[in-house]
Parts: sequence; structure tokens; C-alpha cells
Amino acid sequence: MAVNSPIPVAADLKPVAGIRLGHAEAGIRKANRKDVLVMELAPTATVAGVFTTNRFCAAPVQVAKAHLESLHMASGPIRALVVNTGNANAGTGDAGLAAANKTCAALAELLGCEASQILPFSTGVILEQLPVDRLVAGLPQAIANLQEDNWFRAAESIMTTDTQPKAASATVQVGGRTVTMTGISKGAGMIKPNMATMLGYLAMDAKVSQAVLDHLVKQAADQSFNCITIDGDTSTNDSFMLIATGAGSVEVSEIDSPEYEQLAQAVIALSQKLAHMIIRDGEGATKFMTIAVEQGHDVEECRKIAYSIAHSPLVKTAFFASDPNLGRILAAIGYAGVTDLDVSKLNLYLDDVWVAKNGGRNPDYQEADGQRVMQQSEITIRVKLARGEAQATVWTCDLSHDYVSINADYRS
Amino acid sequence: MAVNSPIPVAADLKPVAGIRLGHAEAGIRKANRKDVLVMELAPTATVAGVFTTNRFCAAPVQVAKAHLESLHMASGPIRALVVNTGNANAGTGDAGLAAANKTCAALAELLGCEASQILPFSTGVILEQLPVDRLVAGLPQAIANLQEDNWFRAAESIMTTDTQPKAASATVQVGGRTVTMTGISKGAGMIKPNMATMLGYLAMDAKVSQAVLDHLVKQAADQSFNCITIDGDTSTNDSFMLIATGAGSVEVSEIDSPEYEQLAQAVIALSQKLAHMIIRDGEGATKFMTIAVEQGHDVEECRKIAYSIAHSPLVKTAFFASDPNLGRILAAIGYAGVTDLDVSKLNLYLDDVWVAKNGGRNPDYQEADGQRVMQQSEITIRVKLARGEAQATVWTCDLSHDYVSINADYRS
Repeated sequence: MAVNSPIPVAADLKPVAGIRLGHAEAGIRKANRKDVLVMELAPTATVAGVFTTNRFCAAPVQVAKAHLESLHMASGPIRALVVNTGNANAGTGDAGLAAANKTCAALAELLGCEASQILPFSTGVILEQLPVDRLVAGLPQAIANLQEDNWFRAAESIMTTDTQPKAASATVQVGGRTVTMTGISKGAGMIKPNMATMLGYLAMDAKVSQAVLDHLVKQAADQSFNCITIDGDTSTNDSFMLIATGAGSVEVSEIDSPEYEQLAQAVIALSQKLAHMIIRDGEGATKFMTIAVEQGHDVEECRKIAYSIAHSPLVKTAFFASDPNLGRILAAIGYAGVTDLDVSKLNLYLDDVWVAKNGGRNPDYQEADGQRVMQQSEITIRVKLARGEAQATVWTCDLSHDYVSINADYRS
Repeated sequence: MAVNSPIPVAADLKPVAGIRLGHAEAGIRKANRKDVLVMELAPTATVAGVFTTNRFCAAPVQVAKAHLESLHMASGPIRALVVNTGNANAGTGDAGLAAANKTCAALAELLGCEASQILPFSTGVILEQLPVDRLVAGLPQAIANLQEDNWFRAAESIMTTDTQPKAASATVQVGGRTVTMTGISKGAGMIKPNMATMLGYLAMDAKVSQAVLDHLVKQAADQSFNCITIDGDTSTNDSFMLIATGAGSVEVSEIDSPEYEQLAQAVIALSQKLAHMIIRDGEGATKFMTIAVEQGHDVEECRKIAYSIAHSPLVKTAFFASDPNLGRILAAIGYAGVTDLDVSKLNLYLDDVWVAKNGGRNPDYQEADGQRVMQQSEITIRVKLARGEAQATVWTCDLSHDYVSINADYRS
């Protein structure tokens, strides 16, 4: 069960005018399982995305990036996104690219548009060829059940090792009018997004120009999906897509405007919620940990230290055990690669408990206080570097027996 | 039980003329346990070391480095090394430095030398003050049992979560005369040495000048302890010390000499053996993995990729499960940070099995072949980058349920 993250209620997920969702059971890897999702967009929609920086970026990621780039050559707007689970179509060479292109062509024919107006996404096992014929055969079923009010099943149909669907909605007042937004995400392992996450989609009914949306997707990713890690493994398929259908009454076309600020804050907040859902449902997770590094020279060094703590198997197992073996945090700070760090000025807090003072054990620190915080299911580790004004926050989970079980058994 | 690594036989460990070893049960953390080791050196000995790069480097590491540096100011040769387990004396601030200095002063008084002629080492829990009075009270017991023929108990007395002592001997002919060398090491978790390992000591009876020994210790560490990782956690206390007692008949005073080459090859081979013992006894290890990255532009990028594979929890759990889910290796290569890597030229082998060819699945690869290799307890992952002549090798182990158990329970 995900940490303090109830399963979303289907009725709470708001339809977003201008986007319809349909799913299919195509038997990509297993039978009788929703494994294909089609998201059909209004012709007014703009789409922007960020993708994995993994050099083994999957075939569908390569195709989706190319199609987004061709937008600027007036090939027509993006009309649909298609996602399959069960196979990542990564490490599949030219055959994999052909499979991703075939998927786009088949869906384009069904929808009456060009293949370049389709964005493909895949998630699942790497280094196996995508059974593209089964995927294509499932598309008519997905199109047959396209509905605006289908976000819950959409979230279900992109799950892999997730224990529950991830979805949330929000509304925000922009210039006195309402923007409605709903997003879904998936991912529970191979999670250390770098520019984007495993898979995340956030749609809103505002009309947003391409330039503004390109800016906003990066801003939102950098404050949400790019600040989470489960196991440090950046996936080959990470993608976060922001969709503005243009079907509502709000229009945002300038970054330097109060309207942009209002919209951006809501998009960032919803992106964080979706990103946190991934961590709360991290493989084997029993604790949700916030790692805040403050008073750094620059954001980069704060992130280095936060990730060093977040990736340390020793820190993560200590949190699983609720054991305040907090010297392991100091060790992880020390090897983070900040070579001129003066540890004698460093302070460490566990929630409200001051653990390390000026680089050593705080004389007033009582193990019972550390123990009390470690029992909680939500814990903040706060590091103060005393060398500047920069700060960064990373969210992660603990490392439990179940993480090993899930990943030792995933394919078998 | 360590992977294919029988417990050393005490009778096989050769005394090294010019070094005597004594141990004590000082009750540092637990009673009735060997937890202090004293190594007393002949006045002819030279000593060189490499230490952790962790910014939270422990108090004894700071003191040992200062004492080695003061060698050049003719304060007299190093006369003894003292090691305690049960407490790392790290994250302990000024009180920790005082405790390390007090240890040196107490041992110097017992041996009739200066405190600066003593090198202190600690390993164990971080962020707790060293019970220095118990340590000092144990020193006379260690001195009382100083013997040349005490390497096995010396290896036992530096163990923490190690399941067995780590020690090995070798002899080498240098210029027609025999050099005898014996080494010990410890460590099973928090292992990703960076300039040195948790603790390793290698003594030989050759006479080696300080300049030559300084060179040799780095060369040996870079090909042994600096190529291993269990969990990516670089410790606060890593130290690898090379001791040349000068009590034998061989003298080496030039790096550019056949004698140096003969000696260096033997020291490197024994260092690798001691380093491999740490991996074979890695916390929860069931497999010993060699990761060889070849045909790189430079050694640095080969090491980046090798460590990226070695640290991936997904790769490590797949090996634990003997599941050839080898796409996880491609993913780890892809996010290693080699930004201009052309994955379409990359080849991946598992022992003799060609898994990925030109960046995709090798059409001739049969899962049964991958499965066969994955069942073994010793496996080589070989990555060919096809972009140069450089290569690097890293040794690691798998990630099992026992790793989580050991580290969730270590202090409790």
C-alpha cells in the first residue's frame, strides 16, 4: 500500500474539456489487463514535454521528440497520445523505431490525421521487441471507448509495478475565470527522473501558446518530477507531458503576466502531487521522506547532497528499520562530491530534532527524540550548510525487503 | 558466508619480519570481543597510506594524515598503528579529535616514542563519541600479546559486520631475493572506497624509500580497493596502509627499476585479493560480479559506466534473483552521465554470451544462455563502447534480502 496516499476516487477526477481518453486490453505482455491508453486532443490543443536524458532513450521517446519538434514546421497540431505498458520498446534498435512509427501510423489512420500528429509512449521491460501487431490490433477498442470522463481507467491502464492508480485534479482561477486540470502518473521503480518522470500527463482546458507551454513544462518538471528518486535508476522512457486543450475560456500567452503566475502555481502544485504519488507508491516503500538542503552556495550542490542522502542504501535501510543511525546521513553528505564543504559548520535536523550541530553530534540531542521521529511514516531531513542562500528539496522513500522482492521477481 | 572465499587458514599467513601484532578485548561497544589491534613496527619501517575523500572524514583519519605528513619534518618514523572497532569516531567534532590524540599519546607512552609516531584508525558506528578511556585501558593487553605470528587474530580484531576475517600472504622474488608480504582488510557495507577502502593493511619486509612507497600505495589502491563497491556508500574512515618494515634483505629505492616492477605487481595482486575478499563478504552477497568496460575514450568514462551498473539497485536485485533482466544494464549505462555516448555501437556480454549488439538485443541471443550464466556465483559483465582504447574494471556484489536485514538491524 502506498504511504499515506489513498486510491483516487474516480468521481473526484474532473473531466478536462478538449481531451478524451480510451483504453484497451491488447495483451501486450499479459492477458486481461488494461495496457493501452489513447488520449485524443481537440485541434486547439498545445502539447509540451520533457523526456529522459538516458542515452538509451527508448524508441517511442525518440519518435515523440521528433514529432514535437516537427510542430514548428507546421505539420499540424498533436491530435493524440498513445501509451502502452508491458514493454518499454527500449534497447530495440531500428526494429523498435519501426514499431513506434507503425503505432503512430495506425492510430493516425483511425483518427484521420498524420502520423506526425501522434505521440507514442511505452513502459515495461527493456531489451525485448514490442509486439506491435497486438498493440495496433487493440487501438480500435481504445477509440471505441473514448470519453472525457475516463481519467480513473486511464490511470489504471498505464500502471506497471504500481500498486494503485495515480491521478488528481485541481481548478484554479486565472484572471477571474476557472481553469480545470487533471493529471495521471505512473512509476514505482527505476525512478530517478532527469528532466521528466517515468510517465506523467497533465491536461488543462486553458488555451496556452506553444512557447509559454514549453516554458511551463520545464518549470513544473524541475519542481516536481525532477525532485524525486526511488532507486536512482533513471529510466529509458521517462516522459512528462503537459497538455493545454484550449477548450476552456482562459488564455495565457505571456510568461511575464499575472495569469501565467496563477496558472503555473496550480500546475506546479498538481505536478508535485502526482510526483509524490509515485514516491508514496515506491516499490516496497513504507516511509515518505523529504530531504531539504538549505544555505548552499548554489542549487546544484544542494541537489547533489540531497540526492546523495536519498540514494544511500544505508540511509534508506535505517529509515526502513526506524533506527536513528543518523551518522549514515553525515557520511552521505560527506561523499556527495562537494569538495570544499566545511562540515564543521553543518547542522542536521530530523523534523524538529536538532541532531548534528557544527558537524558533530549536538550535545543536547537525545536518541529518544530521534527514535520518536523515525517511527513516523513522513519524515523531513533538513541539512543546513551555512554557506549561502540556495536550497533544494528531493523526495524519496525507504529501502525495504519488499523492494528486493519486487525487483527480484518482476519479470519471472 | 562469503562468495567463494574460504576462511583464511592461520598457518598459511606468513609472519613479516619487522612487524608484531597484538589485540585486546577493550569493550568498546560490546564485551568479550576483540576490538583493538596494535601493529608495532621496526624503526626501519616506512609507511604510506591513502584515505577516504569523504568530507566528513573521521577524527582518526585526520590525525593519521597529519602524523604521516609530519614524517617529512623528521619527527621520527611511524612506530605503531592502532585500530579500534565498534566506533568510527566520525561526526564527533573536537571531542573526537581529542580522543584520537589521547589514544596516540597513551600508546606512545607505553612504547616509548612520540605521539606523532602513532597512526590511529577507527571503524564502527558514526556520530557517537569514542569511549576513549576503555580503548586506552585495553592497550596494555594488546601490547602484552604482541607477536609476529598473529595475523589471523589481527584480521579478526578489525571485523565489524564482516562474516569472516580477511587476510592473505604472498612472496615475490625481487632481484633474486624473497620479499614476504601479508595483508588484512575489513569491510562489508558502506563500501565504495574513494582513494582507499574501509580498512586495509599490507606489510612487507622489503626496505622501501618513502617516495617509492608513496607512489606504490596509490598505484596499488587504484587497481584494487578503488575498484570495488558494495553499496556506493563511501565511508568516513576508509584507509589503506602499506608498510615496508625494512627488516628483510630486499631494498627498492627507484620507481623506474625492474625491482620496483616485480614488487609492485606482487603488492597489486595481494591488494586485489584483499579487496575482492571484501566484496565476496559484502553484506548479503550471493554473487561476485566483475564489470569490465572496454573501448572507451578514457578511463574516467569507463569507470563512470562501470560504477553506474555496479550501483544500480535494479541490476543488483536482478543478479540476486538470477533473472537475466538485462535491459536494466543498458538503462544503467545510459544514465551514467557519458553525454555523447553513441549507444548504437555498444555491445554487451555476460561472460561468453553476446546479449546486446549495436545497442539493441542481439538477434542470436537466447534467453536460456543468459539464464545459464545468471545461475553462476561469479559473473563478468563486459561492455564494449567502440569509441577508444581505454578500459576499467569494477568489482561488486548483488543486492539481497540479507543486505536489507543486516543494515536495518545493524545498530539495534
